[in-house]
Amino acid sequence: MINGNWLSLFYFQYMKASFIGIIILSASFSFSFAQDKDSVIISKLSREIMSHTYAYENLRYLCKEIGPRLSGSANSLKAVQATANMLKQAGADTVYLQPYLVTHWERGEKESGFAETGSGEKHFLKLCALGNSISTGENGIKAAVVQVSSFEELDRLGEKGIKGKMVYYNYPMNPAYIETFKAYAESGIFRRAGPSKAAKYGAVAVIIRSLASNIDEYPHTGATTYNDSFPKIPAIAISTMDAEWINFQLKAKQPVAVFFKTSCRMLDDAPSFNVIGEIKGTTFPAEIITVGGHLDSWDLGEGAQDDGAGCVQSIEIIRALNATGIKPKRTIRAVMFMNEENGGKGAKEYLFQAKKRKEQHVFALESDAGGFTPRGFSLDMKEEQRNKIVNWKYLFDDYAVYDFKAGGSGSDIGPLKEIGTALAGLRPDSQRYFDLHHAATDVFEAVSIRELNLGTVNMAALVWLVSEYGL
Amino acid sequence: MINGNWLSLFYFQYMKASFIGIIILSASFSFSFAQDKDSVIISKLSREIMSHTYAYENLRYLCKEIGPRLSGSANSLKAVQATANMLKQAGADTVYLQPYLVTHWERGEKESGFAETGSGEKHFLKLCALGNSISTGENGIKAAVVQVSSFEELDRLGEKGIKGKMVYYNYPMNPAYIETFKAYAESGIFRRAGPSKAAKYGAVAVIIRSLASNIDEYPHTGATTYNDSFPKIPAIAISTMDAEWINFQLKAKQPVAVFFKTSCRMLDDAPSFNVIGEIKGTTFPAEIITVGGHLDSWDLGEGAQDDGAGCVQSIEIIRALNATGIKPKRTIRAVMFMNEENGGKGAKEYLFQAKKRKEQHVFALESDAGGFTPRGFSLDMKEEQRNKIVNWKYLFDDYAVYDFKAGGSGSDIGPLKEIGTALAGLRPDSQRYFDLHHAATDVFEAVSIRELNLGTVNMAALVWLVSEYGL
Repeated sequence: MINGNWLSLFYFQYMKASFIGIIILSASFSFSFAQDKDSVIISKLSREIMSHTYAYENLRYLCKEIGPRLSGSANSLKAVQATANMLKQAGADTVYLQPYLVTHWERGEKESGFAETGSGEKHFLKLCALGNSISTGENGIKAAVVQVSSFEELDRLGEKGIKGKMVYYNYPMNPAYIETFKAYAESGIFRRAGPSKAAKYGAVAVIIRSLASNIDEYPHTGATTYNDSFPKIPAIAISTMDAEWINFQLKAKQPVAVFFKTSCRMLDDAPSFNVIGEIKGTTFPAEIITVGGHLDSWDLGEGAQDDGAGCVQSIEIIRALNATGIKPKRTIRAVMFMNEENGGKGAKEYLFQAKKRKEQHVFALESDAGGFTPRGFSLDMKEEQRNKIVNWKYLFDDYAVYDFKAGGSGSDIGPLKEIGTALAGLRPDSQRYFDLHHAATDVFEAVSIRELNLGTVNMAALVWLVSEYGL
Repeated sequence: MINGNWLSLFYFQYMKASFIGIIILSASFSFSFAQDKDSVIISKLSREIMSHTYAYENLRYLCKEIGPRLSGSANSLKAVQATANMLKQAGADTVYLQPYLVTHWERGEKESGFAETGSGEKHFLKLCALGNSISTGENGIKAAVVQVSSFEELDRLGEKGIKGKMVYYNYPMNPAYIETFKAYAESGIFRRAGPSKAAKYGAVAVIIRSLASNIDEYPHTGATTYNDSFPKIPAIAISTMDAEWINFQLKAKQPVAVFFKTSCRMLDDAPSFNVIGEIKGTTFPAEIITVGGHLDSWDLGEGAQDDGAGCVQSIEIIRALNATGIKPKRTIRAVMFMNEENGGKGAKEYLFQAKKRKEQHVFALESDAGGFTPRGFSLDMKEEQRNKIVNWKYLFDDYAVYDFKAGGSGSDIGPLKEIGTALAGLRPDSQRYFDLHHAATDVFEAVSIRELNLGTVNMAALVWLVSEYGL
C-alpha cells in the first residue's frame, strides 16, 4: 500500500506536473504567438506612418491653406469640409458630419494698449482679448493697475483696494515644475475665473500675465468664463515680456496705469459640426473606439500643435490601417471635435448622439496636448481595464512610449465617461507646448514631422490593440 | 533532548529572525533615509537649474556673439576664452586650459554648383564641401553623375562604370527607424568612407545626399576621411531637396552631369585647447568625474544643438552645485573638448594628460546628442557599475528620464575606457536632431530652454550620485 500509495502519488504528481507543463507550454506558446503577431502588426503600422508625410501635409493644409479655425468662423467650416475629404481619402468607409450649434465669439479688428508710469514713461503692450471676453468699446478703458498674485490677495484688498481699478494677475507658470501642464493648471485659474472675481470688488477690467512658459513678446489667449452674479468686464492677456516690464515698474514703486481697447464680441451660437470617419469593425462592428482631436483653434496662430496635430493624427490612423490592410475587429472612428476651445459643445453633442443612438462606446483616445514626441498615455478607466493596457506596455518599448498612468483623458472625450467608456489621453513631451499654446507662434513650422508621426504610431498601436482584444 | 533541541532550535531561529529583522529594519531605515536625502538633493538641483536662464544665456553667447567654432578658427579661440570665463563665473574652484594642436580645415569662400540634364535643364544646387575634403580648385569640376546606393553597387560598376565620373551616394536616412542615430550610422558610412571608395575606381569627385531626416534646402556637412591608398578627390553634400531633384531626373532616364566648385583647404594643425573647470571633491578629491561636451562646431550653423548645448549643460552643473551649496565628495570636472568634429584630438589629449598625471578617472558623462528633452543614459561600464546606476533609476522618475541601457558614451570621453573609466552618454529625444545636425539650421533658436535645462537636471543628478556614492 505504501508503495502503491507512493506510486499513485508520484503518478498523480507526474500527471499534474505534465498537465501544468502543457498548460504553461501552450499558454506561453499562445502568449508568444500573440506577442509576435501584435508586435508585427504594430511594426507594420509604424513603418507605414513614419515613412509617409500624409499627416504632415494634411496639417500644412489646415494651417497654411485654411489658417486659424475658431468656432463659428468661415475658416472653421472650411476645415470641416477639408477634414471630411481627408477622411475619405484616408479610406474611411463612412464619413459624416454631426451638426449642432457652437459658441461664436469674434476678436474683431482693433486691439491695442499701453502702460504708463507715474513718471510718464509709456510702454506699448502686446496684448490680446481673452476668449469670450466682452470688449472695451470704441473708447477703450484706462485705469490704475493693482497687481495681485493670488485670489487671497484680491480678497484682502477688497472693494476698497480694487474699485475702479484694473486688476493685473501676475502669476508666472512655475518653471520648476517638470510637467508643464501642472504649472498651466496652477496659473490657469486666473484666466478662467479672474475677471469675475475682480468684478466682484468693482474692478473695471482685468489683465493677466500670459500663460506662457517662456519670456517673449507674444500674448497667449484662451477662454475666460464670466460668473453671472457679477458685472462682465473686459479681460486681456499681455505678453510675458510686457508683464516683466510692468513688474519692474511696480517693484521700483512706480504706479502704473494701463489703457487698452478691444473690439471682440460674443455672437449668437452658430451652426457647426463634428467631423466623423469610420472603419467598421469586422467582428464587433457595434463596439466603437473613438480617436480624436479638436478642429477649432484659437485665432492668433494656426492651431498647429493645438490641435491640428490631434486631428491629422486621428485621420492618419484610418489611413495607415487602410494602407496596410489591417482590418480592426471593432469599429474605429476618427472624430474632429468642434468648439473645444471656448464652449465644449462638440463634446456634449457627441455624447448626446451616442446616448440617443444607444451606441456602444468601448474606448476613446484623445490627442490634445500637441504633436510632440510621445511619452505615454494617461488612463481614465476601471483598474482591470488599466491593467490590461499596462500589460501591453512592452509592445510600446520600441516606440518611445513607457508611461502608462491613471489620469484624465481630454475634454472632448471626457463626457463619454457618463456612459462608461474607458478613456485615454496621449501624453507627449510637454516642454515646448506652453511656449506657443494659444499664441501667434502656434504655427505649422513649430511641428516636427517625426514627432507628430511617432505620436500617431503609438495612438494607432493602442487603438488597434483595443480593437483586437477589447478591454 | 528533543524538547531541548527543539527549544534551542526555536531560540536560535528566533534570535536569527530578530537579528535579520534588525538588519532589515536598519537597512531599510538607512535606505529610506538615503533615498530621502538623495531625492531632496536632486530636487534642489532641479529647481535651481529649471528656474534659471544661465545655461541658455551662455548658449546664446556662444551662438550669437561668437558663432560657428570650427577647430583652429579665430571663433574657436574666442569660445575657449568665453567658456573659461563662464566656468569661473559658475564658481569652479579651478579653471585651466589644456593646450595641444588641432586639425585645421577651412571651407574658404566660394562653394557653388549646378546639375544639368541631358535635355539641358539646369538646376542650381545647395551644396557644401564635406569637412576635411580637398577643393576642386579655381576651375571647379564637371562630370557625369553615377548614382549608387551601396558600396556593393559601386564595386559592381567598377572602374569601367566609375572612371572619370562623379559618384553620387543617394542613401536616405531611413525614416522608419524610431531611433534616428541608427539611421545616421547606416547612412553615415558614405560620407565617411565614400570618397576614397569611389576614388579607388577612378571617380573624379563625390556627392552625398545630406545626412538629414527631413527634406529641405540645407546641405549638411560633416567629416570625411581619406584612405591614403587612393587619390584624394573633392567631396560635397547636397541638400535633400536637390537629391530628390536628381533622383527624379535619373528615374526619368535623364542623364545628369554636375558641376561644382569648392575652395576649402586643410592647413597645418593649429594650437587650441580643452577648457576645464573643477569643483574639488571634499572627501575623495583625487577621484575625478568628467562631464562634458565639445566646443568646436561645424561652420555652417552656430553649433547650438551640436554641441554648444553639451558645453553649457556641463558648465551649468558646476553653477548649480555652487549656487545650492551642495559639496560633492568627489571632484567634478566640466570639460569643453575641442576638435571633436574633424580630428578628435581634444579627446586624445585629455586621455594623454590623464595618463601622464596618473589621474584617477572614476566616471565620465558626455552630452553630445543635442539639448533635447532627455530620455535616458547609455552606460558603457562594468555590469556591477551599471547595476548600481540602474538602482538609482527611481530617483530620475520625476525628471522624465527612464531609459538606462548598456551602450556607447561619446567620442570625447570614449578614449578614457583605456584607463578603466566608467562611461555614460546623455540620451535625449532624437527626433529633431538630424533635421539640423551639421547644417545652417543648427542655431540658437532651435534650442528650447526647458529641454536644455531638463537635460542638465538629469546630468547633474547622475554626476552628483556618482560623486556621493562612487561606482
